[in-house]
Amino acid sequence: MSRKIEAPTVEILVIGNELLSGTTLDTNSHWLTKEVTQLGFIVKRKITIRDELDVISQTFKQMIGRRPGWIFSLGGLGPTFDDMTLRGLANALGRKMELNETAAKMLKERYRARSLLYGRKYARVTKASLKMATLPAGAIPLRNTRGSAPGVLIHHDGVRLISLPGVPREMKAIFREQVRPLLQSTPLRNERLERWLYVEGVTESRLAPKIDKTVKKYGERVYVKSHPFGFKKGKSVLKLQIIADSVNASGSKKLLDEVAERLTKSVSSLGGSAKWMKR
Amino acid sequence: MSRKIEAPTVEILVIGNELLSGTTLDTNSHWLTKEVTQLGFIVKRKITIRDELDVISQTFKQMIGRRPGWIFSLGGLGPTFDDMTLRGLANALGRKMELNETAAKMLKERYRARSLLYGRKYARVTKASLKMATLPAGAIPLRNTRGSAPGVLIHHDGVRLISLPGVPREMKAIFREQVRPLLQSTPLRNERLERWLYVEGVTESRLAPKIDKTVKKYGERVYVKSHPFGFKKGKSVLKLQIIADSVNASGSKKLLDEVAERLTKSVSSLGGSAKWMKR
Repeated sequence: MSRKIEAPTVEILVIGNELLSGTTLDTNSHWLTKEVTQLGFIVKRKITIRDELDVISQTFKQMIGRRPGWIFSLGGLGPTFDDMTLRGLANALGRKMELNETAAKMLKERYRARSLLYGRKYARVTKASLKMATLPAGAIPLRNTRGSAPGVLIHHDGVRLISLPGVPREMKAIFREQVRPLLQSTPLRNERLERWLYVEGVTESRLAPKIDKTVKKYGERVYVKSHPFGFKKGKSVLKLQIIADSVNASGSKKLLDEVAERLTKSVSSLGGSAKWMKR
Repeated sequence: MSRKIEAPTVEILVIGNELLSGTTLDTNSHWLTKEVTQLGFIVKRKITIRDELDVISQTFKQMIGRRPGWIFSLGGLGPTFDDMTLRGLANALGRKMELNETAAKMLKERYRARSLLYGRKYARVTKASLKMATLPAGAIPLRNTRGSAPGVLIHHDGVRLISLPGVPREMKAIFREQVRPLLQSTPLRNERLERWLYVEGVTESRLAPKIDKTVKKYGERVYVKSHPFGFKKGKSVLKLQIIADSVNASGSKKLLDEVAERLTKSVSSLGGSAKWMKR
């Protein structure tokens, strides 16, 4: 149990002015974070930037330089002038943009289906729509069953880059249908378990040194976070979140039990009480 | 109207493991983004990282290096071991951490008030609680009327750094009571106006080149984003968001009107229709 867990790491790049003006609440990256965490990956960093080509390309470069296992980008794959994620990515990788035949075929199929429903006017593949099939050289398009712009997968120097559209239903569909199976087939993942303790009668400040000591003892395998909930019936209320990481579930469960026992004793020694809670 | 708008720029650093595991949806930074945008500031970038001292300090350093007008950090000001925002900031600035007398006084007042309500046990200022009054040298504490950890303001090389706690009610109270008046007293701000056009009968791809041309004509002063809403009654539906920036409201309104007229003509020329919409 003493070996360090090298769980696969993820960075997320969120692109779009609307996310930096308070117009749109970014629930996309929250959803993605939850999904990949549940699959045993660890999101190390999330960066939100505007639709500016230089900034996109520099940020991709810096992300690749930190060498996470996976980089996800969200947004900026559409046909309009401000959709510039893939150009930024191509610049960062030193690759050319080129029409991807597979992606073009996906687009044409999608437009044909649309024209059957809504009329021939909608079958036209315009220059602006072909932009969505113009990808960095060597990219693998990921079929979008809910919209036009395909997702994109690129392998680069051991880092896997996945670009998904910003429209939530499209992003989720591509993730579920194409990306999740890929992540599930990754051999080394983290088995993370989480439990919560409900603590009464001890303030966060007084418990802090005890938590500190416990976490230091277990190193990177255990994470404890205290969430203060003010006072109820004259008693300080805290919820303690305990997260344990191990390469298998039984290891994580053993860690959780040990840490919960230690913390329950600490709480008692300070005159409070602790019990498991559902959440 | 041709001079470039140099609106004050903002970067936001969000700190906390819980925001990178899908546990907590980050509504704090969304709220802050909306507030500062409405006050005429432009959020250029938002970065979310884990509670890791080196990462915090490196990220602060990089942010300061980009020289925005303001840097906000959210989270990591509490008493526990994983609250390390201020240590990370002090490292980034090359300043020492020291007990701030004003902050210590704020804490003691807060604890005294708490003990009047809940008993003497809660009046004790422990070592862990004094951590919340230990700030980078030269920092100005910002009173927290809803919790223990004060906010922090630091002037450094022309950049203003503001650290706020992660608990939403505390973050919002400090912003409203202490930070907003500060931002409002900044002389040069941006007067941004926004309106929406409802467009029927033209797809995003076909309209894209026209939008592109309009936006290029107006440069940084105008931003147009098309939001596709699928098909209704056999017609493609788009909502066009037009944002205009100017140093005064009448300039922004004039821009909005001009751009809307151009786009309405473009839509007509493609066989569709456009009208103002409320939103």
